[in-house]
Amino acid sequence: MGFWQGYYTVFEMNINPQIKRIASNMSVCMENKMNDKVHMAALFYPGNIAVIGASTTFGKWGQVIFSNIMAGGFKGNVFPVNPKGGKMFGLNVFRCVKDIPDAVDLAFITTPAETVPGLLEELGEKNVKGAVVITSGFSETDASGKKREREITRVARKNNIWIIGPNTMGVICPHAGLFATGSHPRPQKGSVAFISQSGNLGNQLVHWAEQQGVGISLFVGSGNEAMLTCPDYLEYLENDPHTRIIVLYVENVADGIRFMETASRINRKKPVILLKGGSTQAGKKAAASHTGAMSGEDAIFKGACRQAGILNVNVPSDLLSLSAGFSSLPLPMGNRVGIVTLGGGWGVVTADECTREGLVIPEIPDRIVAKIGKYLPEFWSKGNPVDLVGTRNLEAPVVAVEELMKWDGIDAVICLGIIGRHELVKQLLESTGQADPDASPEFLTQVEKMGREFEEGFIARMAVFMETYKKPVIGVSMAGTGKGVVRPVPESRYSGVMYQTPETAVNVLAGMVSYSRFLLKNRSRLSVH
Amino acid sequence: MGFWQGYYTVFEMNINPQIKRIASNMSVCMENKMNDKVHMAALFYPGNIAVIGASTTFGKWGQVIFSNIMAGGFKGNVFPVNPKGGKMFGLNVFRCVKDIPDAVDLAFITTPAETVPGLLEELGEKNVKGAVVITSGFSETDASGKKREREITRVARKNNIWIIGPNTMGVICPHAGLFATGSHPRPQKGSVAFISQSGNLGNQLVHWAEQQGVGISLFVGSGNEAMLTCPDYLEYLENDPHTRIIVLYVENVADGIRFMETASRINRKKPVILLKGGSTQAGKKAAASHTGAMSGEDAIFKGACRQAGILNVNVPSDLLSLSAGFSSLPLPMGNRVGIVTLGGGWGVVTADECTREGLVIPEIPDRIVAKIGKYLPEFWSKGNPVDLVGTRNLEAPVVAVEELMKWDGIDAVICLGIIGRHELVKQLLESTGQADPDASPEFLTQVEKMGREFEEGFIARMAVFMETYKKPVIGVSMAGTGKGVVRPVPESRYSGVMYQTPETAVNVLAGMVSYSRFLLKNRSRLSVH
Repeated sequence: MGFWQGYYTVFEMNINPQIKRIASNMSVCMENKMNDKVHMAALFYPGNIAVIGASTTFGKWGQVIFSNIMAGGFKGNVFPVNPKGGKMFGLNVFRCVKDIPDAVDLAFITTPAETVPGLLEELGEKNVKGAVVITSGFSETDASGKKREREITRVARKNNIWIIGPNTMGVICPHAGLFATGSHPRPQKGSVAFISQSGNLGNQLVHWAEQQGVGISLFVGSGNEAMLTCPDYLEYLENDPHTRIIVLYVENVADGIRFMETASRINRKKPVILLKGGSTQAGKKAAASHTGAMSGEDAIFKGACRQAGILNVNVPSDLLSLSAGFSSLPLPMGNRVGIVTLGGGWGVVTADECTREGLVIPEIPDRIVAKIGKYLPEFWSKGNPVDLVGTRNLEAPVVAVEELMKWDGIDAVICLGIIGRHELVKQLLESTGQADPDASPEFLTQVEKMGREFEEGFIARMAVFMETYKKPVIGVSMAGTGKGVVRPVPESRYSGVMYQTPETAVNVLAGMVSYSRFLLKNRSRLSVH
Repeated sequence: MGFWQGYYTVFEMNINPQIKRIASNMSVCMENKMNDKVHMAALFYPGNIAVIGASTTFGKWGQVIFSNIMAGGFKGNVFPVNPKGGKMFGLNVFRCVKDIPDAVDLAFITTPAETVPGLLEELGEKNVKGAVVITSGFSETDASGKKREREITRVARKNNIWIIGPNTMGVICPHAGLFATGSHPRPQKGSVAFISQSGNLGNQLVHWAEQQGVGISLFVGSGNEAMLTCPDYLEYLENDPHTRIIVLYVENVADGIRFMETASRINRKKPVILLKGGSTQAGKKAAASHTGAMSGEDAIFKGACRQAGILNVNVPSDLLSLSAGFSSLPLPMGNRVGIVTLGGGWGVVTADECTREGLVIPEIPDRIVAKIGKYLPEFWSKGNPVDLVGTRNLEAPVVAVEELMKWDGIDAVICLGIIGRHELVKQLLESTGQADPDASPEFLTQVEKMGREFEEGFIARMAVFMETYKKPVIGVSMAGTGKGVVRPVPESRYSGVMYQTPETAVNVLAGMVSYSRFLLKNRSRLSVH
């Protein structure tokens, strides 16, 4: 039975009024035919931008968005628009859009809901391609809000303006130097795209991305999705050269079949990692009052995700940790894990977690035991997990990781405590300086430097090993090195990844194994048919 | 059926050679009769300390332990012992223990395994009460190591010296100003005791405790437990006035019945939170090569924990997050949760997680909706979760939390995004200062101060509410405020607790609900009989 055949069977088996409603909504979505990639690209890579409702009143949306775009270093022109005119942020303020002398691709609208239809007409006259409607007070509120939303959609369609939102937190496109959200993190350029139906969850993801060093290609708070919907963004990302991983937070999957078809197709090229809020009764109720949306049928949704190989996670932090792994590491080709640990306890809990997540810890051959054993005291574990029994031999962890990676009996290595040990050394240096009047400050500085350089060197070696052996190495550091999860290596397409807990490393590895299995299965199926 | 009756039934149902072996080991443990609390207290609150093998060679165990004790500010005398004599850290070095002029309660031994029996004889002559044997090379290695371990136990018993270890990472007792582990964190004084059979896992816990602000009463790396075993430490902690919460990492539960009896008894007074490494086949194998111990029967162990109301977690980070909650918050008396969130998405995923963990999100009465509604725009969610729809009204979150806590229909509040929003404000202030040449620096400073003060004030209010209503409020902050999870409030017995993810907050609350249910059930059972 082919993939789509099975997929549709799931749907047919569950035909009920809810599904019929979804299917009838779908035709509306399909009508939109948002397939003009160039038009979409203008929204994320605009030439010039207008901010309607721009303000200097600290904390007003018009000030928040405007200051963010300006401070973020956007290279095009940014035109503040406000009927009051005058000067703002050192720039001339335009009383209305049509006064702007230059062409404008994208407008941010922060003025009250009732002003939006009129503004869209003006934007249409100016041939503006897109509007990010920050303004709330639409379908997330009440019946009259729903009516207002239909109205702005109608006006936007008529004027060939594509709307992001309304009720959106904004967009970030680091490759375009565009930072235009309600909060002001500046995640670096990278390959992960986040689409979030929730503004604050999206914000948290972007903040985490900044703090953890996960590079992003795009963030869109899709808001109420009056016009552009998740599948539209997905279709754009399918061909976006910067995007390699797609992360979605959705509550509303009203356009269920198109969403699943699109996500499934794209997932074969770029991993789609998804969290669906409102998966339980209590969550569903909360979601209904939040985005004003009824959730689709969960069992069907989950089943369809599983069949499509889409990673469907339960909590926001998983979205970020998986992003870090997928964007920084090669895919594992199987589920056999080598564990290298500075101390025994970590090896034990990691082996336990691997087993719970369906990963296996194979025995290693005697010749590898012998090779690693040369660098370790006689009483070491002589097996997998490789317990380095706290050795201070700096070659030991490198040799252990490489020997495991070389061997075709394992598919990935988890490496615990090597990175982050330096934090312990720094505390020891501090104590020594404090307690020992005879300790030489030069010596202490030298030790600190050596430790730091060892860690940098170790991460670089791991990147080389990943390149050579095409297998991931996932690190677990001791508590907070203050350097984030992703540790880029110059000139390398892979980065060091250092999670703070063994369970995060195992969870990410299990997710990557599941995705790679899906791809392999899918490929072999394609080659059979 | 009474508790113990049920408990023994579980055991009887599973009588097998493994259990018989455990039972026969037990009699050996019982012989020890380690019930002299005064003797044990001398190990953690010693008058003077000797460090045997003290050294100035950076990174040697004798240097690591010695510099840690010195820099940690231990108030008693610390005597370095080394046959080389001379001076060290500005102190006279004693060639052997008997040269020390003062009384010594506790000795740390870092010299090679073969020196330990002789040293214990010397310590006996000096009436030293305890020895922390850092030295490895005992039962964790091979048959001759096991023999050495039996030998040191024999010599120690003969001399009435109590041994911690061997192969231990050391001890920390902040209330005694004693920091004597291989790594040098300085967690603050508090009420959580950690007993860990794994040194590196223990280290990680103590590091996290330091970084997250979890105050501890004791840390013991119990090592090979040649003499003092987990149940001995538990019995001590049962009556230790500083300890209110007990956290255990165990791999070896060879003295199974005594362990479970002790832990169960204590858990009725002080929550026992436990992680058992080696719960899966792969983990068990790793554990066997690590502490040289065979794990007990897992199913029995788990069942016994469940019946005894002991929280049995799977991953180390749960130990810490639960410690933070139990030590800082009042116990919830039921599973009904009020959610207050700055934005809708968080409310949705939190409601989902609550449902998955068996917590319920009750509807709130109209009068409470009306009261909260006064502080919010018309279109707010009007239900639980209370979505504050990003309001900037600073009273709104305070009123929402208090109204929920007042109501007898809920047992706990989870509060998302209120704390940590200031991090967003700080980024906005930075952008504003950067982008707006007319922004007044004084104004920006003032806003920063107000935001900071609001958060401090909010946390203080939460502590007052907890005192008043005897219900916990658990916070979830935006990414890293850099201030740790536990935020103490002066003059209050409760602290603010700010986890970084909704799932951690829910998981901790579920753990606390489970413990409180166990207590309630247990009390009512006691009152019936």
